[in-house]
Formats: sequence, structure tokens, C-alpha cells
Amino acid sequence: MQQRASRIVVLAGGIGGARFLRGLQQAAPDADITVIGNTGDDIHLFGLKVCPDLDTVMYTLGGGIHEGQGWGRADETFAVKDELKAYGVGPEWFGLGDRDFATHIVRTQMLAAGYPLSAVTEALCERWQPGVRLLPMSDDRVETHVAVEVDGERKAVHFQEYWVRLRASVPAEAIVPVGADQAKPAPGVLEAIADADVILFPPSNPVVSVGTILAVPGIREAIADAGVPVVGLSPIVGDAPVRGMADKVLAAVGVESTASAVALHYGSGLIDGWLVDEVDAGHVGPVEEAGIRCRAVPLMMTDTDASARMAAEALALAEEVRAV
Amino acid sequence: MQQRASRIVVLAGGIGGARFLRGLQQAAPDADITVIGNTGDDIHLFGLKVCPDLDTVMYTLGGGIHEGQGWGRADETFAVKDELKAYGVGPEWFGLGDRDFATHIVRTQMLAAGYPLSAVTEALCERWQPGVRLLPMSDDRVETHVAVEVDGERKAVHFQEYWVRLRASVPAEAIVPVGADQAKPAPGVLEAIADADVILFPPSNPVVSVGTILAVPGIREAIADAGVPVVGLSPIVGDAPVRGMADKVLAAVGVESTASAVALHYGSGLIDGWLVDEVDAGHVGPVEEAGIRCRAVPLMMTDTDASARMAAEALALAEEVRAV
Repeated sequence: MQQRASRIVVLAGGIGGARFLRGLQQAAPDADITVIGNTGDDIHLFGLKVCPDLDTVMYTLGGGIHEGQGWGRADETFAVKDELKAYGVGPEWFGLGDRDFATHIVRTQMLAAGYPLSAVTEALCERWQPGVRLLPMSDDRVETHVAVEVDGERKAVHFQEYWVRLRASVPAEAIVPVGADQAKPAPGVLEAIADADVILFPPSNPVVSVGTILAVPGIREAIADAGVPVVGLSPIVGDAPVRGMADKVLAAVGVESTASAVALHYGSGLIDGWLVDEVDAGHVGPVEEAGIRCRAVPLMMTDTDASARMAAEALALAEEVRAV
Repeated sequence: MQQRASRIVVLAGGIGGARFLRGLQQAAPDADITVIGNTGDDIHLFGLKVCPDLDTVMYTLGGGIHEGQGWGRADETFAVKDELKAYGVGPEWFGLGDRDFATHIVRTQMLAAGYPLSAVTEALCERWQPGVRLLPMSDDRVETHVAVEVDGERKAVHFQEYWVRLRASVPAEAIVPVGADQAKPAPGVLEAIADADVILFPPSNPVVSVGTILAVPGIREAIADAGVPVVGLSPIVGDAPVRGMADKVLAAVGVESTASAVALHYGSGLIDGWLVDEVDAGHVGPVEEAGIRCRAVPLMMTDTDASARMAAEALALAEEVRAV
């Protein structure tokens, strides 16, 4: 009798989520993987709808990613961007390449024609064949804004402006996923969670990536109620983010930049297992006491093989949790 | 006492109009030129608003045109187009380059923000500095459709589809500037006509370029009432179009492809002077009898100097008309 493929649901942000997913595909080639992608980073630029996290997952798994950069397209050119600058039309700080522009043009045209983002994402994936089912967390507009103080003035800026233009160089006083409280999970999201055998949180940003997905009413509850192992991977190694600037936004929500603090931030009501890096092996006491099973393994995604080993460890920890 | 600059109004289509205008600028460097551009060729492609004739004038006079081709940008690349094709998104028959895309992105964003096309065109021209005041004939949407029979099926296609995709290879049974009857002249159009010293019709297409402009209620009447010389240049030389496929659309409106027939199509109620090519010198009898003063000069715009000589002849004929 043939066993059905293992059904894995992954909550993904951008670069970290995408690289983890590539490893997961290598570690579990027969798995049926559904990705719930963060759309809180989405932004309208030049009248076009840009979905950075969905595109990073799609391009990475579809073989179109700029490998060195981790986002955007390989072999990019910038004729459109140069022309927009010649017209004096900004912002200049968000560097869209010509190939990438085409994706946003197609998406914007389909949205204007009335298709929801989930249908648009599916259509784009018909070309890229990422090998996973990629769902936006919601078809409703959610935009993460960051409260900052710049030159003595308090204001809220779009997350992309905070992250890309300001390079997180000023303290984030608050992180607000605007619209999340009114958003509904996209079609298929709750069903995929309910049908999952395992749910994974990659080492994505716990506040502005995974946290934003969890802020859509119904998703956190569905995960808690799924009755299957939920395993996360720490985005913090040795008290510093694996990549990116996760520490900046953790501070805004009052969470320390440690692997343990992030696990406790998710909480034992949500996650059952937690992978930390070997350097943090000695600090997981409070997490285990809270009822979250920990394991220490190398957590640096230096290449796809390393990511695959991490994914395999996460799946192994899930089975350990299940067996308890 | 300094004389004020001569005020010239030109009704322009695309390539022919743009090349004539470049000649006019050389022939009358101090003139104050207002161009009323045809927008019946405008089309929405990939969700973006494309204005082929306005852009051809803007790029030609602003130094950005692809000289050999006559339309589109010089030094173009086609990354966006290739990507759209990879997504299976058409049409493929309309070849927009990356630089050109930027213009349409800026225009579409401004229109979506509520600016009328005339304001958008002015903003785009701030970059290009075409040396003329470029006005769309109307801020209202007008789209020239062509009734054709393809494979036994009668249907109406957008003018661009007829011209670019079908290459005017099937007979045009009717040409309809959809929306023209409800359109209002753009701000400044009627004022420019009323204030003009001379009004010129370049050797643009008399049906789908100049004819469409004249189909906007108020424009034809304003020209007839302006009380200043109105001089046209024949787009037909020796019974064939100077360039393009004007004969195909002339047939649809029941006009012969001859310099004389086009002049009589405009009519003496509209034009006072008519330039024909030297090869047509012997055939202008009926035009002169109708009260339109003719002159035969070389009408091939082989380079800017040739276009400038044509423009100078048109202005000279206007003065001859004025003196009568």
C-alpha cells in the first residue's frame, strides 16, 4: 500500500524562507508543500503592485532568483528604473529591474481585472513551477508600517521604507500590520493548515514575516488547533540575526534578540519544537521548561545542502514531538 | 518695436507629423508652435496607457526617437517584453521596449492619480523639452476602431491591431473614432486655434490622424472660424502614400488615393492652401477650382532639411493666402 505524500505547511517571509524551502524540497522531495507567504511587505510602486516576499519564494524555487543578492531576478537590467529617474519619478531607493517589472505589470493588470492576489500568484507560478503551492496569507491588503522618529519628527513609514531606505538605522518604536485585523486568510490557507502533517516556521523574521502571517485572524488559531507538530527554526544565532536586521524589529515588540526569547515569543501554545544553533545549545532551558522541545544543530544556510540538513532536522524533531 | 513670435498650430499624427514638426522648428526657429496631437491611436496594453502619436512627437522633438524606425526609443532593450512573453501575456504584436515602458508607467500612474492626459503630457514634456506645446486633442478617451472581415467574420478591431498586427492587409470597411462624438477638446486646444496666425496640416494620415482630431466636436469649427490661413501638405505623392498605408483607410471613407482627392476631402471650408508634390503638379485643377490655392514642391521628408523646406513652403503659401 502506498503511503500518501507528507503534507507540510510552511509560513514564509522572503530570503530566509525561500532558502529554507529550497532545502526542504531537497530533504523531502516527495512532500506536498504548501507555503503561506507574507504579504505585509507588499507595496505599490509606480502604480504597480509589488509583492517582495511572494516573488522571492517564487523566483528562488523557480530558478530565477539573483543568487548573490537573494531577491530580484538574475541577469537583471535597469532601463526602466533609469528612465523613471530621468522623469524625476521616485522612489529611487527601491531597485526594481526590468525583468522584475514585468512580474509586477502582469500582477497589476490581473488585479485590475478583478482577480484576487491568490489567483494572480497561482497564474504567475504556472510559469515558475516552484514545486510548492504558494498562497498569499490573505487576498486583502495588509501593509506593515513602522513607527519611527526621524529628525525629531514621529511618523509611520511603510516597512519597505524602514527596511530598504532607512536600513533600519533608527529605532522602530512600533510595528503595525495595517489592515491585518480586518484581513481574511486567502482561499486554501486554513484548509492547508487543517490538513497538514507538519507545520514549519523557517528562520524568517518572527515579527514582520511570520508574525504578520500570524496576525491575520484565524491563522494562529488554525495552527494551534491543527493537532500536528509545529516546529520552528531560530532566526537568531548567538544573539544576532542569521541575516537581515531581525533584532531591530524584535526590540520594537519587546523581545530580546536570543533564540530562546523568540521561541517563548511564539509560545508553547503555538510551537512544539524549536531548533537552535549549536552555539545556543546551553541556553534552551527556559524554552524546554515551557514545554517546547529543543534541539541544537547548525543553523547557517550557507548553501542548499546546509538548508536541507536543517529541514531534515526540523522534520525529525517534528516526528520526535509526534511520538511523545 | 519687436514683433511677437508667429503662432503656429499644427494638427499632428505620429511619424509624419513629428518629422514635419522637426522641419518646421528649423524653418521657423522663433515661432510659437502648438501641436494638437491625435489620441485615437491610444491603447491600453498590459494595463498601461500607451499614446503612440503623442510619444512619437515627444520623442522625435526631444531627441529620444529611434530614427530609423520613426517610433519608439533609440537604444532600446526588450527585457520586459521578453518576460511578458514568458508569462504568456500578450499581445506580442505591439513591441514596447524597456525605455518606452517607463513612459507608459509614469503616464498610467499619473492618470490613476487623477491627472488628465493633458497634464500628464505636459509633465512628460518637462523632461523631453520638445520645444513645442504638445496638447492631446482631448482628455476624453477616444479609440479608433476599424471594421474588417477576417476569415468570413465581420468584426471591429482597435486601429493598432489593424495597423500593426494585420498590417492593413484586409480591407477596412469602416473607420470609427469611438468616443469622439462625446469628447471635448483638451484645455488650451480651442484657445490655441483661436489665437493662431497659421494652422498647418502636416502630411499625416488624413483619416486616422488629422481626421480623428477633426472628429472631436468643436475643433473643425474652431479652425474654420479662426480666420487665418490653413495650409495642408499632401500625404499622397503620385497616387501612393508618402509612407504608411494611408490608401487603405482612405478607401474606407470613399476617398481616392490622390493628392487632389485628399484636399477636396478636407474641403475649401477648412483649408485655404494645399501643397502637392511636383509629380502631382498637373492634377490640381479641381482643387484650385474649389477655391484652394495649390503649390507643387518636393514633398519627400528624406531628412530634416527637406522637411524644413516643405515647412517653409507651407508658411510661404499661408502668407500668399493671407495676402489675397
